[in-house]
Amino acid sequence: MRGQRVLRVLGVDPGLTRCGLGVVDGKPGSALTLVSGGVVRTDAGAGIASRLLALDREVERWLSEYRPDAVAVERVFSQHNVRTVMGTAQAGAVAIVAAARRGLPVATYTPSEVKAAVTGSGRADKAQMTVMVTRLLRMADPPRPADAADALALAICHIWRGGARLRIATALAGRGLTPGGVT
Amino acid sequence: MRGQRVLRVLGVDPGLTRCGLGVVDGKPGSALTLVSGGVVRTDAGAGIASRLLALDREVERWLSEYRPDAVAVERVFSQHNVRTVMGTAQAGAVAIVAAARRGLPVATYTPSEVKAAVTGSGRADKAQMTVMVTRLLRMADPPRPADAADALALAICHIWRGGARLRIATALAGRGLTPGGVT
Repeated sequence: MRGQRVLRVLGVDPGLTRCGLGVVDGKPGSALTLVSGGVVRTDAGAGIASRLLALDREVERWLSEYRPDAVAVERVFSQHNVRTVMGTAQAGAVAIVAAARRGLPVATYTPSEVKAAVTGSGRADKAQMTVMVTRLLRMADPPRPADAADALALAICHIWRGGARLRIATALAGRGLTPGGVT
Repeated sequence: MRGQRVLRVLGVDPGLTRCGLGVVDGKPGSALTLVSGGVVRTDAGAGIASRLLALDREVERWLSEYRPDAVAVERVFSQHNVRTVMGTAQAGAVAIVAAARRGLPVATYTPSEVKAAVTGSGRADKAQMTVMVTRLLRMADPPRPADAADALALAICHIWRGGARLRIATALAGRGLTPGGVT
């Protein structure tokens, strides 16, 4: 890994009611640096359009402020309850498109991939994840709010695992639209 | 309904592989006018980011070209299989945010609401829907590609049903982000 430059990654733990965001600097084999962590909350009583727009604006603000090199988003998992999955998928799509519009590489990871990257076990519980994120980022206390921890874990996962995925994603970029796809 | 002005509505039948788009002009109690119908296809072999970005660009292009007054998007329905729901939710979110960024009102309708609006029955089948869309838009032949028909039906549904919903949505707009939601 010698010579590899430090990567700044924005991790996104998507959710419509609470969307975790976390920015970490690092490269494989070196200490990680916490840049920022937070949560965007949208009003469950508001319409879907204003909620997604509010989220879009916050993600844009984070992208402008922290200028990450890549974005890592939790992959929606099919065994969750369908109602939750829909909100998660919608929020995730907003973050993915916001990053893609800026030409940033986007990677997605399942919860167990993130757990395995951060704790060594794909079945780690929330407490174990929080302990490891706190330790890896050399924080005195666990990340607050707690939702930020999952986003920071995604960013760490990408820094440690993202290289190969990123090269594949880059190779596939630009193949999104089938030629003549609009009729 | 006297005095109500003609509304131009973009209907979106969201999908990651095929996303139907249809633009209709009309107002309750008057004949409807087909403006445009089409389908955006994205390459199933490409990454999620490039697929959503491709869709975002096409929706933006339609919004710029046709300048609708409102956008109607099919509401994702929980009894579908979860894998399909995720792609539909993601594609729908892209269309909703694209419209909301331009300040356009966005309404969502379930498939049975659309069927009831267009055919009088929430249980109408696809053939019946196509017949009615073709007739209502005074087209010589059914919309091609077929996916466009569902998007056109959404636009018709909104023109006929959207008034009340739209007023509610407008009243709720701006309530998307909880004050102090980012910590």
